[in-house]
Amino acid sequence: MTTIGNREKKRLYLNEVATRDGFQNEAAFIDTDDKIALIDRLSACGYAKIEVTSFTSPKAIPALRDAEAVMHDIARAPGVVYTVLVPNVRGAERALSCNVDEVNLVMSVSESHNRANLRMTREQSFAQLRDVIDTVRGTGVAINVSLSTAMGCPMEGDVPLDTVLGWMERFAALGVQGVTLCDTTGMAHPAQVRELCKRASQAFGALELTLHFHNTRGMALANTLAALEAGIVRFDASLGGLGGCPYAPGATGNVCTEELVHMLELDGYDTGVDLAAVLDAAARLPGLIGHDVPSQILKAGRRLDLHAMPAHAQGVPAERTLS
Amino acid sequence: MTTIGNREKKRLYLNEVATRDGFQNEAAFIDTDDKIALIDRLSACGYAKIEVTSFTSPKAIPALRDAEAVMHDIARAPGVVYTVLVPNVRGAERALSCNVDEVNLVMSVSESHNRANLRMTREQSFAQLRDVIDTVRGTGVAINVSLSTAMGCPMEGDVPLDTVLGWMERFAALGVQGVTLCDTTGMAHPAQVRELCKRASQAFGALELTLHFHNTRGMALANTLAALEAGIVRFDASLGGLGGCPYAPGATGNVCTEELVHMLELDGYDTGVDLAAVLDAAARLPGLIGHDVPSQILKAGRRLDLHAMPAHAQGVPAERTLS
Repeated sequence: MTTIGNREKKRLYLNEVATRDGFQNEAAFIDTDDKIALIDRLSACGYAKIEVTSFTSPKAIPALRDAEAVMHDIARAPGVVYTVLVPNVRGAERALSCNVDEVNLVMSVSESHNRANLRMTREQSFAQLRDVIDTVRGTGVAINVSLSTAMGCPMEGDVPLDTVLGWMERFAALGVQGVTLCDTTGMAHPAQVRELCKRASQAFGALELTLHFHNTRGMALANTLAALEAGIVRFDASLGGLGGCPYAPGATGNVCTEELVHMLELDGYDTGVDLAAVLDAAARLPGLIGHDVPSQILKAGRRLDLHAMPAHAQGVPAERTLS
Repeated sequence: MTTIGNREKKRLYLNEVATRDGFQNEAAFIDTDDKIALIDRLSACGYAKIEVTSFTSPKAIPALRDAEAVMHDIARAPGVVYTVLVPNVRGAERALSCNVDEVNLVMSVSESHNRANLRMTREQSFAQLRDVIDTVRGTGVAINVSLSTAMGCPMEGDVPLDTVLGWMERFAALGVQGVTLCDTTGMAHPAQVRELCKRASQAFGALELTLHFHNTRGMALANTLAALEAGIVRFDASLGGLGGCPYAPGATGNVCTEELVHMLELDGYDTGVDLAAVLDAAARLPGLIGHDVPSQILKAGRRLDLHAMPAHAQGVPAERTLS
């Protein structure tokens, strides 16, 4: 905790996922040098963790086919955990050869989504990830598991809380350090988040628990409040809100980092993140990816980015009323 | 309270503002018949209140120049309060002649915004609104006052809490029934909302207190949670999220009704509002106004609007990973 005046600011830990979770959904390839420059910029922003890239097959995700080059050439900032997504043993070996700090494994807690997304049953995914864990354990590299559809599956609907806790249990038993509960398609709502986070924290006090929200239905920041209330201190977020939702064309995906940081800092939390630096990085995204990003605050500015009085107040009709 | 199973659902009261606060910002005139048809549709949705139109000068807001015709021809549903914005005595007389249930008066609690928006000092606005109150008092028509910039002014920044409470006090002394605290340009954040709502509720227990949030920086639903926590039960919202923010081109304005209702009902509140009917009404907006609306849920659907398994899961690369 950091002491400010006579009150303590609670420390939160943010993981920036835009260069993996965001970029993997981009149709156009982003130059390796541009990726490196962006990650270096993010390294100076104060994040606890950056999910740099994904060691998947270059055929499966060509957008991230430069994973080795990116990991090799970024300048690592002290204190930042550089994590990468790893789907299988081959990916783990590639990641280990790049000296990553952490590997992030992914499977869905709903059978349908796992089959749709990973083309395997959950048991097949678990077996594959267990092999990854066997490969990584003992190397000093940390292991996190991201559990997709933890707050709802777009094909099956609600996922029973006990199912989510059951998968956490199986990975905890394999000795992973962290689990991320992912609201993959933005189905979470605050009351649900509060209960899930309380139950998960109580059951797995030794695990580093991270929440990954999507803003698909506008609730990402409300869900964040609910998670904070339940004691969660680790959150994923994506610069500019990058990263779409394939089940809702045109809708936003990942919670936007700069909107998350803006709210959390205003509410008195210490995110470690420099909001001005993040906004500066986010402002470069449209030029990099060739299209607009969902970030609202990038358009509106911070709440105290004030405006000049309009050049009259001429031009404003006498009875104009905006409440 | 409505009893559902063994728990009681807290009753909330929603005021739909799209046809006033939204339509007044539209460049193209919306046909009177289309306005009437939409309001009739909204009347069947279960809102506690609908802000139908504005009795401002037709020159100042030509978009709402048909206020009399609209008020005259809508079919009023029993139990719904039909309110209208009124800027001055002339507007009040027009509104009274249309047999409205409530008039809504507006001024800003920050001097700069009042001058920019209404071209008057706050004292001039107060004097004018006092005359309106004198005109309406005793007619049986309710009076609500919407206080703009209550959570921040885009020109001045923070507005002291005591300033907000001071203006509430002056209007309470004139015998108004309700006050709406407006986050006019989306500057509110949850900790601030919690404190403002607690203080305002404590000080003015006899006033009907409504909160009006904008989603300019993504926090509208998070701020709603904070207000609920402080005991607030009345909220403004705008179908489709209609109603822009002149200080943030491209950013969203009013909180979106269907996103608000979706979250509140999921969290176990009784809004009285039929979400399916509201979504149906919102889906007609783009055709009516000629452009897209900010509503995310209109793109993504409700959380349990499920999707079929993709026609494979062929086509999904084996290692595709979306967390």
